[in-house]
Amino acid sequence: MKLTLIRHGQSEWNKLNLFTGWQDVDLSEEGVQEAIEAGKLLKAADIPFEVAYSSVLTRANKTLYHVLNQTDRAWVPIYKSWRLNERHYGALTGLNKAETAAKYGDEQVHIWRRSYNVSPPEMDAAQALAFKEDPRYADLPNSEFPLTENLEITLERVRPYWIDNIARDLSYGKNVLVVAHGNSLRALSKMLDNISDEDITSLEIATGQPIVYDLDEDLNVVNKTILTAE
Amino acid sequence: MKLTLIRHGQSEWNKLNLFTGWQDVDLSEEGVQEAIEAGKLLKAADIPFEVAYSSVLTRANKTLYHVLNQTDRAWVPIYKSWRLNERHYGALTGLNKAETAAKYGDEQVHIWRRSYNVSPPEMDAAQALAFKEDPRYADLPNSEFPLTENLEITLERVRPYWIDNIARDLSYGKNVLVVAHGNSLRALSKMLDNISDEDITSLEIATGQPIVYDLDEDLNVVNKTILTAE
Repeated sequence: MKLTLIRHGQSEWNKLNLFTGWQDVDLSEEGVQEAIEAGKLLKAADIPFEVAYSSVLTRANKTLYHVLNQTDRAWVPIYKSWRLNERHYGALTGLNKAETAAKYGDEQVHIWRRSYNVSPPEMDAAQALAFKEDPRYADLPNSEFPLTENLEITLERVRPYWIDNIARDLSYGKNVLVVAHGNSLRALSKMLDNISDEDITSLEIATGQPIVYDLDEDLNVVNKTILTAE
Repeated sequence: MKLTLIRHGQSEWNKLNLFTGWQDVDLSEEGVQEAIEAGKLLKAADIPFEVAYSSVLTRANKTLYHVLNQTDRAWVPIYKSWRLNERHYGALTGLNKAETAAKYGDEQVHIWRRSYNVSPPEMDAAQALAFKEDPRYADLPNSEFPLTENLEITLERVRPYWIDNIARDLSYGKNVLVVAHGNSLRALSKMLDNISDEDITSLEIATGQPIVYDLDEDLNVVNKTILTAE
């Protein structure tokens, strides 16, 4: 079976150099083009998929749409879950990365961005309430709603969705496409490739470049190919 | 609760005056515009929906995408089923409507198009095989695969999906959007509005004009509004 991972194209906030996390930001025009290109790469390589997964964030949903469109697979079943969302950036959400570095120091910001298990400060109650009231999270109990996350916590909430849904479909012999975010895809890659806590945070996943895994029946990785334009 | 029905925008074959049925035909450029307009109408009227249903045919899937896009609801869960497909047109699939009338006579073609329970001739085995092998129908047993349908048969296969999925979500208090086809929407309208077998075939459902039902807790229709541009 094949499992293909795609990181969404550039968003408006990537462009502005802001911490995004769970903020619902749209794709930039360049991001739309990256999504279309990712779809063309899948089509040219004739990569099959009969089911697709995504987060509940617009930038991933729209990237998935463009991939379905380019591959003539508008009919493919789609499942969207908060468990595939980007890592929650806590109180940093919406802040400029350079200004945050100036305020807290480069080293502290580097730790928040790149440590495996150190979280940024929690989002304040007023900002968190606005997120909780968003209807896309109506099925996520307030008690489970994150106020900040690191990669370890992100992986812990991705894992049950992997086991119960994505890995299940692969076990049934389906080819699967996942369109998600830098850190939820890092979490999946860590599990698939058995990457250590130390090494995973330096794994860079490029936007719009499909990562195609060939898996054996026990879901061990047999081959891993990154599709690029040239 | 609100239930909104939208018929997909114009397809390439509507334009060419061909019988379409289950043939997977893309939206025309005008069809895309109709889909975008339908989304703008829903947004302007502030019609809520937290779940969306569609067929497995591209023209409905893409119409739904444009509606989600215009209403900033890319996150909404989507469910796609062959049970919401257009009526299967049997051996007429792909034939020109005018040529078919010249060959079989206007009256016969009118009966095939507009009678409640007379089906066109069955699709031949070779053409049917190509449909059965389409991966979008992998979960539909060959024994259940239609070779032709009339509106009564269409309604019979829509009804279980209505009961088990759409009506269930409405009963749970969710607002629902359904983006489908002339005849699968006629089937839903017949059940909702208690329209007779005689009257239902003359009910015209315009492309891209949202039909918004207000339902009480027993799913009786309290109000029905058609949103139009002017």
